[in-house]
Amino acid sequence: MNDNFTLPELMLRPIVEAALREDIRSGDITTRAVVPPDTQGRAQMTMRESGVVCGLAVAQMAFWQLAGEGCERTELLRRDGEQIEAGAVVMEISGSAEIILTAERVALNFAQRLSGIATLTRSFVEAVEGTNARITDTRKTTPGLRLLEKYAVRCGGGVNHRFALDDMILIKDNHIALCGGIAAALERAKRNARHSVKIEIECDTLEQVEEAASAGADIILLDNMQPETLREAVQIIKGRAVSEASGGVNLETVRGIAQSGVDVISVGALTHSARALDIGLDVELS
Amino acid sequence: MNDNFTLPELMLRPIVEAALREDIRSGDITTRAVVPPDTQGRAQMTMRESGVVCGLAVAQMAFWQLAGEGCERTELLRRDGEQIEAGAVVMEISGSAEIILTAERVALNFAQRLSGIATLTRSFVEAVEGTNARITDTRKTTPGLRLLEKYAVRCGGGVNHRFALDDMILIKDNHIALCGGIAAALERAKRNARHSVKIEIECDTLEQVEEAASAGADIILLDNMQPETLREAVQIIKGRAVSEASGGVNLETVRGIAQSGVDVISVGALTHSARALDIGLDVELS
Amino acid sequence: MNDNFTLPELMLRPIVEAALREDIRSGDITTRAVVPPDTQGRAQMTMRESGVVCGLAVAQMAFWQLAGEGCERTELLRRDGEQIEAGAVVMEISGSAEIILTAERVALNFAQRLSGIATLTRSFVEAVEGTNARITDTRKTTPGLRLLEKYAVRCGGGVNHRFALDDMILIKDNHIALCGGIAAALERAKRNARHSVKIEIECDTLEQVEEAASAGADIILLDNMQPETLREAVQIIKGRAVSEASGGVNLETVRGIAQSGVDVISVGALTHSARALDIGLDVELS
Amino acid sequence: MNDNFTLPELMLRPIVEAALREDIRSGDITTRAVVPPDTQGRAQMTMRESGVVCGLAVAQMAFWQLAGEGCERTELLRRDGEQIEAGAVVMEISGSAEIILTAERVALNFAQRLSGIATLTRSFVEAVEGTNARITDTRKTTPGLRLLEKYAVRCGGGVNHRFALDDMILIKDNHIALCGGIAAALERAKRNARHSVKIEIECDTLEQVEEAASAGADIILLDNMQPETLREAVQIIKGRAVSEASGGVNLETVRGIAQSGVDVISVGALTHSARALDIGLDVELS
Amino acid sequence: MNDNFTLPELMLRPIVEAALREDIRSGDITTRAVVPPDTQGRAQMTMRESGVVCGLAVAQMAFWQLAGEGCERTELLRRDGEQIEAGAVVMEISGSAEIILTAERVALNFAQRLSGIATLTRSFVEAVEGTNARITDTRKTTPGLRLLEKYAVRCGGGVNHRFALDDMILIKDNHIALCGGIAAALERAKRNARHSVKIEIECDTLEQVEEAASAGADIILLDNMQPETLREAVQIIKGRAVSEASGGVNLETVRGIAQSGVDVISVGALTHSARALDIGLDVELS
Amino acid sequence: MNDNFTLPELMLRPIVEAALREDIRSGDITTRAVVPPDTQGRAQMTMRESGVVCGLAVAQMAFWQLAGEGCERTELLRRDGEQIEAGAVVMEISGSAEIILTAERVALNFAQRLSGIATLTRSFVEAVEGTNARITDTRKTTPGLRLLEKYAVRCGGGVNHRFALDDMILIKDNHIALCGGIAAALERAKRNARHSVKIEIECDTLEQVEEAASAGADIILLDNMQPETLREAVQIIKGRAVSEASGGVNLETVRGIAQSGVDVISVGALTHSARALDIGLDVELS
Repeated sequence: MNDNFTLPELMLRPIVEAALREDIRSGDITTRAVVPPDTQGRAQMTMRESGVVCGLAVAQMAFWQLAGEGCERTELLRRDGEQIEAGAVVMEISGSAEIILTAERVALNFAQRLSGIATLTRSFVEAVEGTNARITDTRKTTPGLRLLEKYAVRCGGGVNHRFALDDMILIKDNHIALCGGIAAALERAKRNARHSVKIEIECDTLEQVEEAASAGADIILLDNMQPETLREAVQIIKGRAVSEASGGVNLETVRGIAQSGVDVISVGALTHSARALDIGLDVELS
Repeated sequence: MNDNFTLPELMLRPIVEAALREDIRSGDITTRAVVPPDTQGRAQMTMRESGVVCGLAVAQMAFWQLAGEGCERTELLRRDGEQIEAGAVVMEISGSAEIILTAERVALNFAQRLSGIATLTRSFVEAVEGTNARITDTRKTTPGLRLLEKYAVRCGGGVNHRFALDDMILIKDNHIALCGGIAAALERAKRNARHSVKIEIECDTLEQVEEAASAGADIILLDNMQPETLREAVQIIKGRAVSEASGGVNLETVRGIAQSGVDVISVGALTHSARALDIGLDVELS
Repeated sequence: MNDNFTLPELMLRPIVEAALREDIRSGDITTRAVVPPDTQGRAQMTMRESGVVCGLAVAQMAFWQLAGEGCERTELLRRDGEQIEAGAVVMEISGSAEIILTAERVALNFAQRLSGIATLTRSFVEAVEGTNARITDTRKTTPGLRLLEKYAVRCGGGVNHRFALDDMILIKDNHIALCGGIAAALERAKRNARHSVKIEIECDTLEQVEEAASAGADIILLDNMQPETLREAVQIIKGRAVSEASGGVNLETVRGIAQSGVDVISVGALTHSARALDIGLDVELS
Repeated sequence: MNDNFTLPELMLRPIVEAALREDIRSGDITTRAVVPPDTQGRAQMTMRESGVVCGLAVAQMAFWQLAGEGCERTELLRRDGEQIEAGAVVMEISGSAEIILTAERVALNFAQRLSGIATLTRSFVEAVEGTNARITDTRKTTPGLRLLEKYAVRCGGGVNHRFALDDMILIKDNHIALCGGIAAALERAKRNARHSVKIEIECDTLEQVEEAASAGADIILLDNMQPETLREAVQIIKGRAVSEASGGVNLETVRGIAQSGVDVISVGALTHSARALDIGLDVELS
Repeated sequence: MNDNFTLPELMLRPIVEAALREDIRSGDITTRAVVPPDTQGRAQMTMRESGVVCGLAVAQMAFWQLAGEGCERTELLRRDGEQIEAGAVVMEISGSAEIILTAERVALNFAQRLSGIATLTRSFVEAVEGTNARITDTRKTTPGLRLLEKYAVRCGGGVNHRFALDDMILIKDNHIALCGGIAAALERAKRNARHSVKIEIECDTLEQVEEAASAGADIILLDNMQPETLREAVQIIKGRAVSEASGGVNLETVRGIAQSGVDVISVGALTHSARALDIGLDVELS
Repeated sequence: MNDNFTLPELMLRPIVEAALREDIRSGDITTRAVVPPDTQGRAQMTMRESGVVCGLAVAQMAFWQLAGEGCERTELLRRDGEQIEAGAVVMEISGSAEIILTAERVALNFAQRLSGIATLTRSFVEAVEGTNARITDTRKTTPGLRLLEKYAVRCGGGVNHRFALDDMILIKDNHIALCGGIAAALERAKRNARHSVKIEIECDTLEQVEEAASAGADIILLDNMQPETLREAVQIIKGRAVSEASGGVNLETVRGIAQSGVDVISVGALTHSARALDIGLDVELS
C-alpha cells in the first residue's frame, strides 16, 4: 500500500459521527416502521461506473459507528486508490438490516464524493504522464472536509499543497498589493518567518519571476501564464526555486502546461468541482 | 424577498466558525509576516462568471466572526437568489487588512460552492418552465453542509425534499426487498407512522404504481422510468398521490420528464455534482 | 418487540455522557474515600412502585460508559414498555463497586423520569381504549431530552407529534393573527411548503374548521373545544382531514374527548408534568 | 434582589443554545411559509396560573440568541422568585415576528418548568414556616439541567444540597453496606477526605445516629424516620452535627417533620416531580 | 493501591483526545513519509531522571485512542505515585510503529508534566515529615488541566484544596475589602451558604484570626505569616477551626512553617511552577 | 507593535471559555454569598516581580466573556512582550465586583503562565545576543495550550518551531532506527513529501551530518553536541542547510552553543519548565 494513503481515524471519527447525526436526527422512521425488528441483511457496495475508489474506510466507519465499533461485519474488497471497473463490488456488509439501511446514505455520500475527487485527480495525473510535473490541490476545499478531500487527492495520485494558513507562507497578489511589491514582501517574509516553513510568492510577469528568484523565494507561483511564458519562466528560475503553475488549468490545457517544464501544477477544480462517482448499495435478506 | 430565503444564523454560526478554524489553525502566517500591522483595506467580492449568487450572508459571517461581530464593515450589494452578470460586485468589505485576507478563502469557498448549486438548480428550473413540475433535491448532500446546500437549492428556485431520515417515510427498493413487497410495506408504514408525516414509496413498474396508489401512498417515487412510462404512471395515479420522478435526470432529459406530467423531479446532481462558480476577492489599501 | 421502541445509540451516547459529567465532575469523592479499592459488587434495579418501565437501555449505558463499553456486566430482565409490578427487579449489574456507585444516580435519574412519562402516557392510552383516538405528545418537552421523552411516550403506547419546527407545518393562533386568517395562512403555506410535509392548522371555532377543511389542511387542530363541539367539528371535517384535539386534556376529560370521534388527542402534560416513578438500586458485595 | 438569584450567563448560554438547536433544526418552516417577511410583532409572556415565576432571564436569552444578542427588545416586568398572580404579564418582547415565533416554545419550556419547580419549592418552604427547618433539593434533577433546576429551588426559597459527586462526602446505605458499618465508613472518610469538604452519613436507626455523631460526622442524614423518631434523633445529636431528614416527605408530612427540630429537609420531588406552570405567549402585529 | 489515585476515565478521555488533535492535526507526515507501512515496533518509556512517576494511564490512553482502544499492547510496569530511579522503564508499548511514533509526544508531554508536579509535591511532603501539616494545592493550575494536576498532587502525597469556585466558600482579601470586614463577611456567608459547604476566610493579622475563630469560620487561612506568628495564630485558634498557612512557602521555608503547628500548608508552586521531569521513549523494530 | 504578536481571537475564545467553565462550574458561591449585589469595583493587575508580560489580551477576554463582550471596562496599560518592572500596573478593570472576582483566578492563571514563558524566553534570547543564533521552542508544550505558549515564546523574542506533526518533516532518532539510516530516510522523505514542507533530520555524529547535508536536508538537527563539535558540524554543513542545536541547553550553556555558529537553538524548557511570574489583582470599591 502506498504509505500516503492513511487517514488518522481519530480525525475521521467526529466527521463521520457528525454526518450520521445530520442525517439520522431522531431516528430512521422508515426503517423502523417497515422493516421487521431483528431482520438480518447482507449488502454490497457496488461501483455503478468505473473510477478510482476512495473513502472505503470512511464508509465503513459509518456502519461501525452506528453499530458500535466492530459489531457490524464489513469487508473491504478493494483499496482506496485503486482504479475499479463498473459493476465491481468494493465492500460487503452484513448484520442488522436496520443499521445497514440507516447508515447507507452517509456511507455513500462520503464514498461518492471522495471517489469523484480521486477519479478527477487521476485524470489530471494521467494527462501529464511522462512530464516532470506533479498535480497538486489548493485550499478551495469543502468547508469541514479538507482533511478527507486532500486524502482523496493523494489517492488519485496527486500531492497536497498546504493544509491551512499556518503551514507555509504563500504571498499572493492581494498581499503584494498591500505591502509594496515582490521584493519588499519577500524581504519582510524572510525576516519574520520561522525557519521551518517555505516561502512561496505569486508572479504575474517574467520580470516578477526574476525578482522573486533573486530575492530567494523557495517556490514561485506562475499565475495564469500561457505554456510558452511558463517555459520562459522556468528558464529564468533555473532551479533556484520550485516552479508552480496555476490558473486556467483543465484537462485540455494541463499537458501543454506540464510540457513547459514546471514542477507543480495546482488545480482548484480537483476539490471544488469534481462530480460524484456513482456508487450504490444493494441489500438483501441474509 | 422570497420568504424561503432565510437561514437561521444560530445554525450557520458553528459551521462558519468550524470552517475558519480548519483554515486558520494557529494563524495566517503569511499576512502576519508581510502585511504591516494596522493596515486598513477595502475589498470587493466579484463574480468572475455569471450565475445565481448564493451564500453572501455566509461569506459575510466569515468576516464578522473573525473581527468580532459588527466590527468589520460589510455591505451586501446583491441578494442570494439573484441572477448576476459576470464582473458584477456582490459584496464590499472594508476594515483591517489582516481580517480581510485571513477570512478571504473561507468566505469564497462558501460563496463559490453555494452559488454553484443555486446556478445549477436554476438551469433545471428553467428547463422545465411552463410545465407543472417542480425541481427538488435529495439527501445526496455534502456531509456537514446539508442545511446550506438545501438553502442554495431554494435560492435557485428548487424546493427541498426531506432533510433527514426522520421527517418523512420514504420506502425505497432496499426496504421493499426486506419486508415483502409494496402493499406489505405500506400497510406496516401506515400502522406505525405518526400522523404528522407523509409516506412515499418507490416504484419501478406500473403494476407497483397501481398497487402503491391503491394502498394509499401520499407520494409515489417513479424510479428510472422513461417519459412515456412516466406519463402512464401519472394517469394511473390520477391525483390519488403526488408523483415524483427520479433517476437519469440531467439537463438534456429533464424537460421530457417534466412533460410527462409528474409533480416533482428530484435531482441528486444539484448537490453532489455542481461545480463551483468562479467568484473572486480584490483587496486594496484604503 | 414493538419496532417503535428503538433509540439510536449514536444519539443517546452524548446525552448520557453529558449527564455523567454533570454529576461526577472531578470524581465521586465519597466512593473513593470509603469503599476499598477493587471491591466488587452486585446491584439490582428495583421498581419501588408499579408502572411502565422505560429507559433501561439508557440506564445501562450509564454503567457502560463509566466502565468502558462492555466491561460492566448488566442484564436487562424486563423491556422498555412493559407494565411492571412494584418490587420487581428490572436490571442487574455486577462488577466494580466504584463504577456501580458512581453511575447509580444518573442511571436512576433517566429511568425514573422516562418511566414516569411512559406510565402517565399509558394511563391516557388506557383511558381512551375502545375509541378511535390516539394519544400524542407535543413539543413541551424538557430542553435537551426531547428524543428520550418522545421515546418514552411511544413506550407508553402513545404516538409522537412533530419533533421540531422543521418536520411539519403547524399554523397556530399566533401565526394566524400575523397573516390574516385561516384561508390566507393555508394558501401561503401550500404555496411555500415542500411537498413532503403535512400542513396542520389550529381552529377555535366551527366556522374556522369548515374554512380549514375547504382550504385543504391535512390536519385540523381543534383547540380547547368541549366534547360536543368536537363532535360537530368531526362531522364538519367528514374525513377531509385528520382531526386533533388539544387543550384541557386530563385523565378526567380525555375519554369524553375521545368519544367525540377525533383521531388524535395531544397532551402536553405527558412530558411537561409527569412525576418520576420511584425506582431504586440496591448494592451488595459480590 | 436576593443575592442567591444569579445564574452565570456563561453556563446558561450553551444550554439555551442547545435547546434552540433541538427545536429549530433546519428552520421554522411554518413561520417561514406563512408569516410575511419583515413582519414586526409584539409579544407578552403571561402567567396563565399563579405561582413563583422563574427562568425569565433564560427565556429572554432564547430570544436574544436567535436575534443576535441585544437585537430583540425584551423587557422583564417581574423578577425571578416573585409570587405572581394569574393573568399577569411577566415579560414583553418586540421585534421580528419570525424571531419571536421561532423562539417561543423554547422560551416557554424553560420558564414553565423552572417556575413549576420554584412554585413547588415555595409550597414546601411555606409549609414549614415558623420552624427551624430549611428545605433543600437533591441530585434527582433532570440530566443536563441541574444548574437551572437548583437555581429554581433557590428562587422558591429553598437551599441547595450538593451539586455533584465531588463537592461533599455523603455516605449512603449502599456505601455503608460495602465498607462495614457507620464507624468504619466515617473513619475511612475522615482519613481520606480533603480538609475542605464536609462529611455526611445516612442513618436508619437511632443507634446509628449516636454512632455517627460520636464518630464526628458533620451532617447526619435521617432516612425515612417518623417525626417522633426524628425528634429523638435530634436530641441524640444535640448540636454535634447538622441534622437532615429525608424520605417520605410531601406537603402533608413536611410540617410534622419540620416540627421534630431537624435543621434541613431534603425533597427529591422538588426537581423530579414538579409539574410545569402554565405560562403563555401572545403575539400581535406591531 | 492508594484509593485516592484514581482518575475517572470519562473525564480523562476528552482531554487526551484534544491533545492528540492539537498535535496531529492532518497527520504525522514524517512517519507517513519515512516509516514503511505496517512496520511493527516496540517502545520503552524510560525515566531519564529519578522522581515520582505520574500520568502513566494518561500516556497509555494516548496510544490507545490512536489505535482504537485495546488494539495497542501497553504494559504499565510501575504505578502512579511510585518513586522511580533514573533509567527505569515505566511502560512498554508494542504494535504499529506509526501509532507509537504519532502518539509519542502527547504521551510524554502528559507524563513529564504530571510527574514533575508529583515529584515537587513529594519534596514538600517529605520536607514536613514528622509534623502535623499536610501539603495542599491551590486553584493556580494550568487552564484545562486542573483535574489532572490535582491528581498529580495526590500522587505526590498532597491533598487537594477546592476544585472550583463552587465547592467551598473561601473569603479572600478582595472579598473582605468589598463587604466590610471579617465578621461582616462571615455573617453574610453563614446566612447565605448552603449547609453542605465549609467556610474559610483569609486573615492577615492575629486580631483577624481571633475575629474569624469567634465568628465560626471552619478554616482560617493564615496569609504570609512568619512561623512565630503562625504559632501564635494556632494557639489563638485552639482547635476551633482548621488552620491553613499560605504565602512565601518554598522548600527552604516549609518545614519551619509546618513546625508552627498549622494543619495545612497550601503551595501554588506545586502546579504553577513545577518543572517537567525528563522521561523519554525509545522505539525499535519488533 | 511587532507584527508577530497577534493571536487569532477566534482560536483564543474557546480556550478562555473552557478555563472559565472549569473554574466557575455552577457559580462563584463565595462572591454570591458575601458581596452585596450590584457592588461596583475597580481592580488593578499588578506585576509582583519584574519580567516580560504576556497574555494581557487573554486575561482581558476572561473578564469580557463573563460580562458579555464589551460590558466590562478594561484598559491595557502595557503590551504583551514588554519588559515590566515589579510593582507596575499592567491592566485596569472596572465594573461589577462579582464579575471581577469571579474571573480573577482564570485571568491571572493565563497571565502568570504566559508571562513566565515569555520571561524565560527573553533570558535565553539575551544570553545569545550578538551571535547569529535564534532561540526556538519545541512541541513540548502543555496539552491544550500550544497556541498560547508558542505566542508567549514569540513575545519573549523567540521564534516558533513547528506547530504540529503535519507542518514539516522532522526525522528523529526513532524514525531513523526504523527505516535504515539517514540517507534512506531522506530519500524516502523527499520522494513522499509534498513540495511545500521543509525536511529536517536529527544527527548525532559528524558523519551523519555530512550524510544529511549531501542528501539534501533543509535543516539539520544537531543533537546533544558539545560547542566544539557543533562548530565542526557548522563547517561541514557550510550553508547547505540550516543548522539547529538541541539538547543540554540551559542558561549556562546556551551562549557557548550559540557561539559555535548554529542558526537555531531549540529549548524545550521554554514551555515545559518555565515557572509562573507573580502577578496579582487588587480590587476596591468604586
